[in-house]
Amino acid sequence: MGNNTDIPVTVIGLGLMGQALAGTFLKAGHPVTVWNRTASKADPLLDAGARLAPTIGDALESGPLTIVCLTDYQAVREVLDTTEPDGTTLVNLTSGSSAQAREAARWAEGRGARYLDGAIMAVPPAIGTDEAVILHSGPRPDFEAHESALRTLGTVTYLGEDPGLASLYDVAGLAMMWGVLNAWLQGTALLGTAGVDAATYAPFARQIAAVVAGWLPGYAEQIDRGSYPAEVSALETDARAMAHLVEESEAAGVDAGLPKLFRAMADRAIAAGHGAEQYPVLIDEFRIPRIPR
Amino acid sequence: MGNNTDIPVTVIGLGLMGQALAGTFLKAGHPVTVWNRTASKADPLLDAGARLAPTIGDALESGPLTIVCLTDYQAVREVLDTTEPDGTTLVNLTSGSSAQAREAARWAEGRGARYLDGAIMAVPPAIGTDEAVILHSGPRPDFEAHESALRTLGTVTYLGEDPGLASLYDVAGLAMMWGVLNAWLQGTALLGTAGVDAATYAPFARQIAAVVAGWLPGYAEQIDRGSYPAEVSALETDARAMAHLVEESEAAGVDAGLPKLFRAMADRAIAAGHGAEQYPVLIDEFRIPRIPR
Repeated sequence: MGNNTDIPVTVIGLGLMGQALAGTFLKAGHPVTVWNRTASKADPLLDAGARLAPTIGDALESGPLTIVCLTDYQAVREVLDTTEPDGTTLVNLTSGSSAQAREAARWAEGRGARYLDGAIMAVPPAIGTDEAVILHSGPRPDFEAHESALRTLGTVTYLGEDPGLASLYDVAGLAMMWGVLNAWLQGTALLGTAGVDAATYAPFARQIAAVVAGWLPGYAEQIDRGSYPAEVSALETDARAMAHLVEESEAAGVDAGLPKLFRAMADRAIAAGHGAEQYPVLIDEFRIPRIPR
Repeated sequence: MGNNTDIPVTVIGLGLMGQALAGTFLKAGHPVTVWNRTASKADPLLDAGARLAPTIGDALESGPLTIVCLTDYQAVREVLDTTEPDGTTLVNLTSGSSAQAREAARWAEGRGARYLDGAIMAVPPAIGTDEAVILHSGPRPDFEAHESALRTLGTVTYLGEDPGLASLYDVAGLAMMWGVLNAWLQGTALLGTAGVDAATYAPFARQIAAVVAGWLPGYAEQIDRGSYPAEVSALETDARAMAHLVEESEAAGVDAGLPKLFRAMADRAIAAGHGAEQYPVLIDEFRIPRIPR
């Protein structure tokens, strides 16, 4: 631990993100070994002081911390399958599902390797800044052993032992991102029909989003208690206003798909007898899949 | 103008919200006249110092500012249709559509009356606090003449001359509210399948919502310019991650309706040739209704 930039770091995979990760470690002063299937991609990093591992086996023996950032988990399997990575901690930042992360953790465990999964909530140019949020899950001691080096990459968070958590938090966060963006586009399109510029509406939308985000911790307590008294308003009041949003959208010639989805979920909860309860009671509609697969 | 609490205020309609409005004006020291179809609802306000108008005509002649807060615009029409409200400014805070607001404004104009429409983004107990956001639209001079008295009720905003704007901003703001809440429920349900409490996930969701809300003013500039260069990321990258969210939701047994809607809208924009542009290019999918009416 400590803020020791002498710790050697290995980076496997030199796509745009892998290059950003390796470059950031180099800039921070870490000795960096890199490996990539197409070795020529390493050239700019070698110019900046990195060492090219001649084989994947050599790469995995180069130090205590190995960052893996490949196209997908299939590529991870292809690259690592014949190796014995028992002398390093693998931190797999490849994008994938929670099931793939858990499977990779089992594979690593079977080889006596230490394994952390991770998800990068950032674009390559943000790596190395506080804006790069990087989520980690897996054994806590392995995270703590390398936390200091990992912090070189951005704002690093440890989520828990289940290696699937990083991926789940990642997609949950993306769902929030698209939720905010699509709701904002709905309002922007509606107000646009009355001649209101997007720039005029945006600060209003921003404020509403921030206010509602502030309710989430309190609403979360209702979910964890499984009790939804209508302290502020009842779901059936929301449903009436949703009908209103559908009507305004249709009257204005704006796509009503999102408002109709909101309303359909509320209507299902009301049909199940929850109209007099508060909005978070809708969690049961999310938990129970209604769409045939 | 000025902060003169001597200005008499009339309140038409004494449901829960009307009572809160009248009570707040009384507490601030305004002389308050009230009227309601069922007069007995006025009793608590009369005890607090309000005056009961014997007829709707008398109510409208009681002062320069008349707040109307009835069940719906149908009720507004029934109550006001035989009156000549030309000696007061009507501020109609009844919930309704932008079309109804514009129609009511035309009706008032036809009778030589001054008319402002308004929308209350708050529950009755919040009236009189900064948390009660009240939106107004209509002729600016009429708003400015009564702005000081209206500020008694909460955080008052003037949106523009079009009397439909208050209603449109209201539903747009509600769309944002449901957008944040439903996206949060999606993530909460997903993480719940991995044993993560709602309270553990909520601060993360809150932070993501606030960060994304901060992008809206910049994204709005892209919409107003009609130009969507992929400065941060391209829509097709979002679409791949959306596919991921759909898969994670289905694998976890969580409703995938919301992720599928996100993806369907992105896919339409990509099919229209916008995959290499940035997310706000989706505005065109909201502007053009695809769902047959």
